[in-house]
Amino acid sequence: MEQAPAAKGAGVRGRPRSEAVERAILEGVIGLLEEGVPLAELSIERIARTAGVGKATIYRRWSGREELFVDVLRTLEAPASVLPGTSMRDDLVALLEQIRRRGLNLRSSAFLHNVFAQMKSLPKLWTAYHATVVEPQRQRAYDVLRRGVDNGELRPDVDIVLAHEMFVGPMLVRTVLRLDAPLDEGLSERIVDTVLEGLRPVE
Amino acid sequence: MEQAPAAKGAGVRGRPRSEAVERAILEGVIGLLEEGVPLAELSIERIARTAGVGKATIYRRWSGREELFVDVLRTLEAPASVLPGTSMRDDLVALLEQIRRRGLNLRSSAFLHNVFAQMKSLPKLWTAYHATVVEPQRQRAYDVLRRGVDNGELRPDVDIVLAHEMFVGPMLVRTVLRLDAPLDEGLSERIVDTVLEGLRPVE
Repeated sequence: MEQAPAAKGAGVRGRPRSEAVERAILEGVIGLLEEGVPLAELSIERIARTAGVGKATIYRRWSGREELFVDVLRTLEAPASVLPGTSMRDDLVALLEQIRRRGLNLRSSAFLHNVFAQMKSLPKLWTAYHATVVEPQRQRAYDVLRRGVDNGELRPDVDIVLAHEMFVGPMLVRTVLRLDAPLDEGLSERIVDTVLEGLRPVE
Repeated sequence: MEQAPAAKGAGVRGRPRSEAVERAILEGVIGLLEEGVPLAELSIERIARTAGVGKATIYRRWSGREELFVDVLRTLEAPASVLPGTSMRDDLVALLEQIRRRGLNLRSSAFLHNVFAQMKSLPKLWTAYHATVVEPQRQRAYDVLRRGVDNGELRPDVDIVLAHEMFVGPMLVRTVLRLDAPLDEGLSERIVDTVLEGLRPVE
């Protein structure tokens, strides 16, 4: 039976509502990571103890450690861009801005950098993160590009997958591979417009 | 005093010529890595013992572990592309082919994949590899692009750094980030030509 929603910050003794429980669990994990506990050593038991809930409360919300950690990573990351929907060009700029913001976050936070580095050495978590976070983002970008073909903003003869890599590739080079490269404001617009325009000289 | 060059395969008892000593040392390291010895645990002592040379012989050729390991990685990698020099376009295709071949090598060899993964967790080696291998490759690509501006193949108003990322970005997305993406023949040509052409529909 669902309980009636309780007031926010209902106090330690009141049964907090579902959303607050979720937040407490996620924040508990983040707190443990901040204390330096390695991701690989975080057990559901310990997370439950830290959040002050039972293990069943966690398993009711997440099917396992990987699913929970993906939500933790999502909480730590920059939130997804809202697509303005005014044009393919503007939507692509918004998508690249999200990658740029995430890159800036990773650079400014040694903690975040460390958590993501740990994730990469845990194949099951890396796979879950890709399936839950990265892959839907890619599908969202493909949809934007398909709308661009439909409304005449994108060449219809171009492979959507390659077009996607042409837009995100230069930004990923700077955020993932060249950690000293500038991520200045206006970079997303510059990439999108230059990829659309091409590098051949105008006749 | 330099010794006279000895015949190739001069036998164990003859003093082998300098190049053969170098090869024996590099192959000794590769052999140890293939046996599963972690890169981080490879000492100059052990390498010298394996190659049957003194430590001084190694230090005469490499100033330290990092410099030696960079040469080992270079030996394992696909050799650098020869630039045809017929056009900026053809030179860029050759540069992208080198990244594509390296990507294919890394995919087909678990050993190579493992060695590069180990390198990434050794910051000093990673830095040395970047300074010695990656950075010169980037400078070589910048030269190609500058020649393209000079001969009218590339828009002169475009930032060379961004142009470089536009050409290599899509290939790096497939070789470094999306290990399941196709690396088919013709991909390098397709990327270079599409980046030059742009993605805007032809009026």
